[in-house]
Amino acid sequence: MERIEHRACFGGWQDVYRHRSTVLGCDMHVAVYLPPQAALEAVPVLYWLSGLTCTEQNFITKAGAQRYAAEHGLALVAPDTSPRGEDVADAEAYDLGKGAGFYLNATVAPWSQHYRMYDYVVDELPALIEAHCPVTDARAISGHSMGGHGALIIALKNPGRYRSVSAFSPIVAPSRVPWGEKAFSAYLGDDRGAWKAYDATELVKTAGEKLPLLIDQGDADEFLHTQLRPDLLKTEADAAGHPMILRMQPSYDHSYYFVASFIGEHIKCHAAALRGR
Amino acid sequence: MERIEHRACFGGWQDVYRHRSTVLGCDMHVAVYLPPQAALEAVPVLYWLSGLTCTEQNFITKAGAQRYAAEHGLALVAPDTSPRGEDVADAEAYDLGKGAGFYLNATVAPWSQHYRMYDYVVDELPALIEAHCPVTDARAISGHSMGGHGALIIALKNPGRYRSVSAFSPIVAPSRVPWGEKAFSAYLGDDRGAWKAYDATELVKTAGEKLPLLIDQGDADEFLHTQLRPDLLKTEADAAGHPMILRMQPSYDHSYYFVASFIGEHIKCHAAALRGR
Repeated sequence: MERIEHRACFGGWQDVYRHRSTVLGCDMHVAVYLPPQAALEAVPVLYWLSGLTCTEQNFITKAGAQRYAAEHGLALVAPDTSPRGEDVADAEAYDLGKGAGFYLNATVAPWSQHYRMYDYVVDELPALIEAHCPVTDARAISGHSMGGHGALIIALKNPGRYRSVSAFSPIVAPSRVPWGEKAFSAYLGDDRGAWKAYDATELVKTAGEKLPLLIDQGDADEFLHTQLRPDLLKTEADAAGHPMILRMQPSYDHSYYFVASFIGEHIKCHAAALRGR
Repeated sequence: MERIEHRACFGGWQDVYRHRSTVLGCDMHVAVYLPPQAALEAVPVLYWLSGLTCTEQNFITKAGAQRYAAEHGLALVAPDTSPRGEDVADAEAYDLGKGAGFYLNATVAPWSQHYRMYDYVVDELPALIEAHCPVTDARAISGHSMGGHGALIIALKNPGRYRSVSAFSPIVAPSRVPWGEKAFSAYLGDDRGAWKAYDATELVKTAGEKLPLLIDQGDADEFLHTQLRPDLLKTEADAAGHPMILRMQPSYDHSYYFVASFIGEHIKCHAAALRGR
């Protein structure tokens, strides 16, 4: 873990680290915000997964989340959205390859060599953070768009690993929307049966733990009816008796202005779960 | 005024307009945040001037100011930092030409044709905003770095025009630091007497109104001792009996993480002045 950025922010520190990822086979950047409380005691962590085209920078520069993390004494950990480097496979498109890892383990060449963001986010990254930073093993997870998809599937697949989960404008049914169909075809191949392992609308049917799902969605989001479709998850969650709060926020679009407007409420909810309040 | 961005944000709207500037002789972008209160009544305005290399986007995406503007019912207006367009003079350097207008009226060719940011910010822009947006003529002004310089000189030169002024990490003595010497030489020529009209440490000696100056400065700012030198302004303000609060903030650098950490306190102060609370 080499610290490459270190900036005072709301009484704590907004850092960025570079580290070698064994799982991904490349160097990665990860952003870590440590609130003022972390100078005195280990603090719980909210993992944030970003959307298509993002790096570790978008959330830390645009969401204004540090203010709330400082208020509630949470660390924020925001990884990049895909493996990186010259030898990592890529595509011309913004929605495949670098910047578009979809938080899964690819099984089809050439993607399968590096694209293992699922294992990275679930196992390698928390182990690294918990070994090197003043944090506890109390974890929450959230994200935006492709990252909202990542947060949902990772929480649903790992009972007991996270105390809370939320998402902004998530891709909830990747098997049934263009972004997901394109990425899953490339990364996982044409057998749609294999896609179910990374599709929240499938996973919610049989989740081993009924962690409540908090989802905020702007009703003026340009991708709502084509790529996001939170109604599909709500239907399956209701059928499975899985608690889910879907808040349709009037007039909001898909941008970080939407995330910024409601991240404070999400962090308050995560803090309550993480600190047992 | 053509609206080119319109995004819901903290219950209000983050807009960006394109308009023809007569003063600058080019098209300009300006960001306008309208808080929720503006749907019901005209609200006062905080003008924000950005620093070197910035456009109208930096403040609205990175400072997290909309939350506080919504809380206090202020509009935020953030112009670009220089004239723009293919026929506008420029330099290779980041600290001269486009993105580096220094909020003055240039008198030396080729700059004098378009670089009249002082008149734009003082007169043309407020007239436009007050004619087209649901705002009152109660104005405050603030800014960062080169924009902090702009806020200070504009408030000091225009008694009665602003109800409050503040600055983050401002260039307070441009006549005596490398950034200012380079820009003023180019824009105003070699007669240093002419520079005094745009130098806060000179203007504070004879200001027609002793509006209190609130300045936040990070003590880990990489430009503190070479380009910013708030001590030079403090000495002159104290000598002139001009009220000035200089807060040296430990560990903070020159980035927007610093602005984000304290913009809430500045907006609270401006709101008190603007709303008479």
